[in-house]
Amino acid sequence: MAAKRIVLVNCDMGEGLGPWKMGPDEDLMPLVDQANIACGFHAGDPTIMMRTVKLAKKHGVAVGAHPGLPDKEGFGRRLMDIPPEDLYCQVLYQVGALQTMLAAEGMKLNHIKPHGKLYRMIKDDPKVGDACMRAIKTFGVPFIGLPGTAHEELCKEHGIEFMAEFFPDLWYDDEGQTVPILPKMDKIIATEMVTSINGNEAKVPIGGRTFTCCIHSDLPGALVAAQAARAAVDEAGAGAGRK
Amino acid sequence: MAAKRIVLVNCDMGEGLGPWKMGPDEDLMPLVDQANIACGFHAGDPTIMMRTVKLAKKHGVAVGAHPGLPDKEGFGRRLMDIPPEDLYCQVLYQVGALQTMLAAEGMKLNHIKPHGKLYRMIKDDPKVGDACMRAIKTFGVPFIGLPGTAHEELCKEHGIEFMAEFFPDLWYDDEGQTVPILPKMDKIIATEMVTSINGNEAKVPIGGRTFTCCIHSDLPGALVAAQAARAAVDEAGAGAGRK
Amino acid sequence: MAAKRIVLVNCDMGEGLGPWKMGPDEDLMPLVDQANIACGFHAGDPTIMMRTVKLAKKHGVAVGAHPGLPDKEGFGRRLMDIPPEDLYCQVLYQVGALQTMLAAEGMKLNHIKPHGKLYRMIKDDPKVGDACMRAIKTFGVPFIGLPGTAHEELCKEHGIEFMAEFFPDLWYDDEGQTVPILPKMDKIIATEMVTSINGNEAKVPIGGRTFTCCIHSDLPGALVAAQAARAAVDEAGAGAGRK
Amino acid sequence: MAAKRIVLVNCDMGEGLGPWKMGPDEDLMPLVDQANIACGFHAGDPTIMMRTVKLAKKHGVAVGAHPGLPDKEGFGRRLMDIPPEDLYCQVLYQVGALQTMLAAEGMKLNHIKPHGKLYRMIKDDPKVGDACMRAIKTFGVPFIGLPGTAHEELCKEHGIEFMAEFFPDLWYDDEGQTVPILPKMDKIIATEMVTSINGNEAKVPIGGRTFTCCIHSDLPGALVAAQAARAAVDEAGAGAGRK
Repeated sequence: MAAKRIVLVNCDMGEGLGPWKMGPDEDLMPLVDQANIACGFHAGDPTIMMRTVKLAKKHGVAVGAHPGLPDKEGFGRRLMDIPPEDLYCQVLYQVGALQTMLAAEGMKLNHIKPHGKLYRMIKDDPKVGDACMRAIKTFGVPFIGLPGTAHEELCKEHGIEFMAEFFPDLWYDDEGQTVPILPKMDKIIATEMVTSINGNEAKVPIGGRTFTCCIHSDLPGALVAAQAARAAVDEAGAGAGRK
Repeated sequence: MAAKRIVLVNCDMGEGLGPWKMGPDEDLMPLVDQANIACGFHAGDPTIMMRTVKLAKKHGVAVGAHPGLPDKEGFGRRLMDIPPEDLYCQVLYQVGALQTMLAAEGMKLNHIKPHGKLYRMIKDDPKVGDACMRAIKTFGVPFIGLPGTAHEELCKEHGIEFMAEFFPDLWYDDEGQTVPILPKMDKIIATEMVTSINGNEAKVPIGGRTFTCCIHSDLPGALVAAQAARAAVDEAGAGAGRK
Repeated sequence: MAAKRIVLVNCDMGEGLGPWKMGPDEDLMPLVDQANIACGFHAGDPTIMMRTVKLAKKHGVAVGAHPGLPDKEGFGRRLMDIPPEDLYCQVLYQVGALQTMLAAEGMKLNHIKPHGKLYRMIKDDPKVGDACMRAIKTFGVPFIGLPGTAHEELCKEHGIEFMAEFFPDLWYDDEGQTVPILPKMDKIIATEMVTSINGNEAKVPIGGRTFTCCIHSDLPGALVAAQAARAAVDEAGAGAGRK
Repeated sequence: MAAKRIVLVNCDMGEGLGPWKMGPDEDLMPLVDQANIACGFHAGDPTIMMRTVKLAKKHGVAVGAHPGLPDKEGFGRRLMDIPPEDLYCQVLYQVGALQTMLAAEGMKLNHIKPHGKLYRMIKDDPKVGDACMRAIKTFGVPFIGLPGTAHEELCKEHGIEFMAEFFPDLWYDDEGQTVPILPKMDKIIATEMVTSINGNEAKVPIGGRTFTCCIHSDLPGALVAAQAARAAVDEAGAGAGRK
């Protein structure tokens, strides 16, 4: 870890639908390096996708696709037993739609990070993982996933660049309030260690690589979390140099 | 018209949804030159899109996008008062999704032909026409539309190649049965004239150009109509030389 | 107007969808007399409907159905050219679903007030108006609509009890801020007069009847507007005696 | 079994969507005793529901609700991990909507038979079973399900009348053609025995009760199967006396 460690901040965005809003995208965008934009299956619609693409463009944020299960009412978080070949087609469809919107704005697709239950099914179900990675492979961009899991192995098998992701969990203090994530970000950047919920020290298998830290825009404290993550990265001198 | 007149046959396909079928795509595909594949808004889903792409590939049929209004229950045939900028995004989304599926099969998008009410709104509503044509322009492929209408003018304005389309209307004989369209195809190919429903002779503004003849796969007589169109084109020596 | 004038406050509620929220229903419910609950077509889903029914029950608020066009992305505010007989079926479906949920909680359907564009189509398109009123008639409850319009005439024709509705428009002061609606409520209750946007005095055709004042829960100032309306009604001694 | 054994024929119907058809409902309706009408979640829409209700009315067929999972593309046959309380609301919503349409035609809800994966989840997942049965209980009509399974036990617990259902499986002859179900119907009516796929004789736990035989309208041989079932029931003198 002699060379400069680069740490990025990514955030799921464009997760509204029609008249409904989800996170504070306008406030979050200036704080992040990577926006994962929902593609219309678990959330998002073409108008919201374009609006979010333009917002990212304005702030110089790299845009990735955030495909999900076809289940808006469940926000893509309910298991659906969809045949892997159908998921292959659904990933192509969603990512292709976003890539085209980016092209219309003179931008390129930067990465792919599946949403919610699909993110987990890729990790946990080998057939789903294989089908989705075959679809992802066609786009020639990195996959953002969990280090040390099937995400990483599948990327190796399929010849896809893998970018490790860290989730700064939300913790609560004795008053039941959310604790800003600054301390943990600090620690993970410096040592790749986290304190587990059982109070033990655990090593996250990042291995000195560049990694990205995920902010969930749909959680109540999203803005505070994003500000803390941004500050932690910048104070550690680990930023990628955003405009 | 000294040079060989080329006449193509196009057909809307992939218009099923999940478990529901629409036209006899398997039987129609060997008969047509161009398949317009529904893109998931008025009909179709990613699995059906991919299946139809592969069917077209097998038969050497050129594939175009068939985007529609977001209204499956109305099959994209009910007027919806959607703001033009939303339609711009929706056309990008749908055509982009199909283009990506084609790329995954090593194929290229051949043309764009909007579906049902959207096809008409582009012709009849200048703001809708402008918004959709701006989206279509980004794909760099021809637009299939009605000659002598705003379809043609809009293509000229936007620098989009225009391909004229002819609808062999379905007529009925004295027994109330559908009359095969052979005689009319014969005439339109030779003279660009049709007999109107009032019994008068009318000139279709094709102007000696290559044109394409549309078969609606969702009509009961689709297969007979496609066979008759194919035969008429072949007998007139106007075919483009399908495999 | 010698007898006590009764003025009610109604509010559209349950207009979220899956993970998405719309108005501050929990805060609004204690302030209103009538909750119009969305029925799953323009907004709402079965879980949100039940949660809103229970919230109304807890606060002793009467529940009406708020059916809309089948268009979530457009929030039921975009014109859709749906055949009247289809709308007849859609109104039966939506109101029936809500009525059953109310029954499961030991409550009765109190009224019907269509949403957004459907509300206007009933007023402006005689065939739509007739079809929807035939569906509404089967429930045997009042219709909330605009006095002096086809809403009122249609109710008379179909033998449906009509309840006049007043929209306290949102106005802005010189600072561009929303002005609380208290003064106008005061005036409409006392005199049935409003000041038009051209500065003229206009008579609202309420005719001394009980009427209901509508709060749009999806507007930013919904809570302030509801508080002002509640206060105006109570101060005028026109309340129906909520628990 | 001294008293007359009554055997009914039920069939899932109204499983089209918008422009898409599923089974040959017009031909099947005259052959069945009970129509299970889809309620708009896995299939069906308000217009199709009303059309199917009227078709049943014309033929004197009893109408039950056929609620399903909210998944049209998967036709309600894919597992979805929906919380039981959400399913409780969804069953109320769907059955309530159909019941209201029946009431508008002067008809009463006759029974409830869930569709596809929901039918199985009720049987296999105790929490789902409990939630759905609580919803079903509110309608006061029989439940059609599998004898000797949790369907039957849950009905007993919840005080719901249970009607046993028999599935005449589709078999194939040496030519690969579907064998009409007549012989098996004959046997099940007379002896409550079936030949299992392993060639053994098995007892179906009907216990001398009235039971109903299910025809899947979406299978290719639906009409032949319905005709054979009707004939078998009539020839055994086990019919309920349809008009």
